[in-house]
Amino acid sequence: MRVVDLIRQKRERGEITPEQINFLIEGYTRGEIPDYQISALLMAILWRGMTHSEIGALTDAMLRSGRTLDLSDLAGKKVDKHSTGGVGDKTSLVIAPIAAAAGLVVPMISGRGLGHTGGTLDKLESIPGFNVNLSLPDFRRVLGKCGCALIGATDEIAPADKKIYALRDVTATVESPALICASIMSKKLAEGIDALVLDVKTGSGAFLKAEKEAVGLAELMVETGRRMGKRVVALITDMDQPLGRAAGNAMEVAESIEILGGGGPADLRELCLELSAWMFYLGERAASIDEGKRLASDQIISGRAKEKFREIIRLQGGDAQVVDHPDRLPKAQHTVDVTSPSDGYVQVTDCEKLGLACVALGAGRNIKEDAIDPAVGLIFPRKRGDAVRQGDTLCTIHYNSPARLDDARRLIAAGFQITRQAPAPQPLVRRVIGA
Amino acid sequence: MRVVDLIRQKRERGEITPEQINFLIEGYTRGEIPDYQISALLMAILWRGMTHSEIGALTDAMLRSGRTLDLSDLAGKKVDKHSTGGVGDKTSLVIAPIAAAAGLVVPMISGRGLGHTGGTLDKLESIPGFNVNLSLPDFRRVLGKCGCALIGATDEIAPADKKIYALRDVTATVESPALICASIMSKKLAEGIDALVLDVKTGSGAFLKAEKEAVGLAELMVETGRRMGKRVVALITDMDQPLGRAAGNAMEVAESIEILGGGGPADLRELCLELSAWMFYLGERAASIDEGKRLASDQIISGRAKEKFREIIRLQGGDAQVVDHPDRLPKAQHTVDVTSPSDGYVQVTDCEKLGLACVALGAGRNIKEDAIDPAVGLIFPRKRGDAVRQGDTLCTIHYNSPARLDDARRLIAAGFQITRQAPAPQPLVRRVIGA
Repeated sequence: MRVVDLIRQKRERGEITPEQINFLIEGYTRGEIPDYQISALLMAILWRGMTHSEIGALTDAMLRSGRTLDLSDLAGKKVDKHSTGGVGDKTSLVIAPIAAAAGLVVPMISGRGLGHTGGTLDKLESIPGFNVNLSLPDFRRVLGKCGCALIGATDEIAPADKKIYALRDVTATVESPALICASIMSKKLAEGIDALVLDVKTGSGAFLKAEKEAVGLAELMVETGRRMGKRVVALITDMDQPLGRAAGNAMEVAESIEILGGGGPADLRELCLELSAWMFYLGERAASIDEGKRLASDQIISGRAKEKFREIIRLQGGDAQVVDHPDRLPKAQHTVDVTSPSDGYVQVTDCEKLGLACVALGAGRNIKEDAIDPAVGLIFPRKRGDAVRQGDTLCTIHYNSPARLDDARRLIAAGFQITRQAPAPQPLVRRVIGA
Repeated sequence: MRVVDLIRQKRERGEITPEQINFLIEGYTRGEIPDYQISALLMAILWRGMTHSEIGALTDAMLRSGRTLDLSDLAGKKVDKHSTGGVGDKTSLVIAPIAAAAGLVVPMISGRGLGHTGGTLDKLESIPGFNVNLSLPDFRRVLGKCGCALIGATDEIAPADKKIYALRDVTATVESPALICASIMSKKLAEGIDALVLDVKTGSGAFLKAEKEAVGLAELMVETGRRMGKRVVALITDMDQPLGRAAGNAMEVAESIEILGGGGPADLRELCLELSAWMFYLGERAASIDEGKRLASDQIISGRAKEKFREIIRLQGGDAQVVDHPDRLPKAQHTVDVTSPSDGYVQVTDCEKLGLACVALGAGRNIKEDAIDPAVGLIFPRKRGDAVRQGDTLCTIHYNSPARLDDARRLIAAGFQITRQAPAPQPLVRRVIGA
C-alpha cells in the first residue's frame, strides 16, 4: 500500500477502505507517514468529502489510536453532551451537574476556547484551584465518587486526532465536515459512553453559520454514532446571538450558578433543560423529553444540581464556595457601557464579532500560547428583539487593560444594529436530528 | 503574511498575488515553510487551478529561486525545444544538432525518463562516455564552442522546482496543469532563451491523454512564455502510437542517427523537420515554416547536422564514432518477436502499455534508484494502419534478462489490437497553439 496512491484515490473521488484508513492513521500516529502526505490527503478530503462508511472507519481508527475508557463497572448509563461552540455557551457547566445529580454518569472531556468561541476548560479554570488536568485514573476516581468529572483531552485519548488536528490548524483543512465529525466523535466515543447529545450551533456566532451546513454535520455525527453502536441525537440550536447574558470565563461560571440556583436568563435555562432532557431520554432515565425536562427541573428546584456542582468542584481541587459566593470568582477592574445610538429594537447582526470582542479583551487566545484573563468579558442586558431607547446599555464591557478596549468597542459596534422593526423571533432549538 | 491564510485563500478560489507567491516560494526554498503546508497548498491548487497571472508569478518565483543563464554574449538567437514526453520520442537528439548547425544556440536542459516515457538524458548516456552532468561553466563552454549542449538540471537551476517536484511526486499533486506549466517554464526560461518550441503530446502514450487537456496545458505555457517576454509556440502532436520505430535508449540513439543521415522512419523525420522549422522561425532564421523545413532539410542533406552531433558528443566526453558506427552502442543479448495473432490492420490501443513494456525490460525506472539498461527496448516494424498477416512481427523485444520478458510480453499484447478495418489515419501535428 503506497500513501501516494491512496491520496490519488481520494483526490479522484475514490472511496478509501477501512483497511486503507487504518493503515494511514496507524502509520501517521507512529510517525511512519510524514506530515506532508497527510496534509495533502486532508486537503483532498476537504475537496471530495467522505462517505458515511469512510467517516465511520476514520472515527474508529482515530479512537483506537489511543486508550478508550471502560466505565462498565460504574452504575448508571454513561451519557455526555458536546457543543460545536458558540458565544456565551456555558451549558456544560449546568447540565453536567444536573445529569449527574439524577444518576447519570457524565465523563466529560472538554476543550478550550477556539477562535471566537469560549471553552469549558477555560471557564472552569476561572474557579480558583479547579484542576482540569486530571490523569485518567483520577478522572475515573472522581467519576466514581460523584458521577461527573470534567477534564481536558489527555495525550492518551485519540492521539491521532491530536496530531491531525494540529496539522489541520496550519494547513487550512479545519472546515471539512467529515474531519470535524471524526475528530469530535473519536474523542467522545473514547470516553466509554452509551449515549451522546450533540448541540450543533448555527448562525452568525457559530463555526457553521448556515443551517444547512450545521444539519449536514449533525447528520454525519448521528450516523457515525449509530455505526459505532451508540445512541446519538443532535439539536440544531440558535447561535445568532450570545446564549444567556454573559460571555467571558468567570462571568459565565457566575451565570451558570444562577441557572443552577433557579434563576438566570430564560434562553440559557430553556436550552439547559432541553439538553438535559435529551441526556435523560437517551440514558433511559426518562420516557419522554417532557419527562426529562421535569426531571432536570427537579434537580434545580431541589438544590441537588447545585450541590453536585459543589461536589465536582471540591473533588477537582477547586474552591466550592464560589457556588454560594460568586464574588469569590475573579473580577475585572473596570467596566464601561456600550449604549444604543438610537431608539428601536436590538438586532445582533454578527454574533462572531461579539465573541471576538471577548477575545480582544483577553478572554480568549489569538495564538495557542496566549494566557487567558478569566475575569474579563461582556454582559448583554438586552436580547435580540428587545426594545431600546437611545443611550440604553447594549453591552457592558468588563476589562482590565484599557489598551484592549478600542478593539473590543469596535467589534461590539459591528455586531449590533438597532432596527425600526422588531426582528422576527427565532426558535432556540431549530431542529432535532436522529431522534 | 500567514501561510495558512494563503492556503485558505487558494482553497476558497481566491487568487494569490505575486507578492504572496514570492513569499511562499522564497520561504519554501529557504526551508522556512514546512513541506506539510506546501503540500496542502499544492492540493488546493490542483483543486482550484490558477489564473494566468498566478502561473506567471509562480513561474517567475521558481525561476528566480536559483541561477539563470545569461547567454547574451553568444552570437545567434537562443532557442530550445521541450516535449511533455512520450514513447519513442527522440526528437531532441535530432533537432538540437540541426538547429545548432544552422546557427541557433540551443542550451538544452533535459530530463530523465518518467513513468512510461523515455528521457533525453538516459538516451544520451547510452553513448559511451557521454557526460550529461556538466557544471554550468562547462555547459556555457560547450555552448560557446558548438552552439549546443545537452545537460540535466543542476541544483543551481530553479531549486524551488526541484523541491516542489519531489513533494508533488509523493503527494499525488503531479497532475495540475498550472503546476506542470510552472515547472516546465521555470526551468526552460532559466536557460536564458529567446524562444521556445513546445511539443505537447496527446493520446494514449502521453501524460495528458485527452487532446483538450493537452491544448489547455499548451495554452497555459504559451501564455506564460508571452508574459515572460519570450516567443513560445506549442505543437499538439500525436502520441497514440510510438514515434518512429524504436523505443529504448541506445536503440533510439541509433534511430536518431539514421534521421540525421537522411534515412529513418517517415513520422519521426516529419516531426523533427516540423519542430526544427518552428525553432528557425521563432529564432528568426526563417521567414516561414516552409522555409524553416527547407533549412532543416539542408542541414541533414549537407551532413552538417550529423557533423554537429559528432561535435556535441565529443565536447561532452562521448564516443563520437557511434555516429558512423552505431554498432558501438550497447546491444541487448537476446531478441524475440511478438507476432500478429490474425490477419488485419495494426491498431495501437494503448501506447502507454508499450512504454511500460520498455520500463519492464529495464529501459526505464520503477523507483528513482533503479539503474537503466541502455541496451534493451522494442522495435516496431509496423505502424498503426499497416496491413498484417497472422504471424507477422508486430514488435521485436531486445532484452537481457529473461526474467523480465513475461511482463513485457503481456504489456505489449495489451497495447496492440488487430482490426478488420484499417483505423482512420491521424495527423501527426494536430494543432499549433500561439503561432
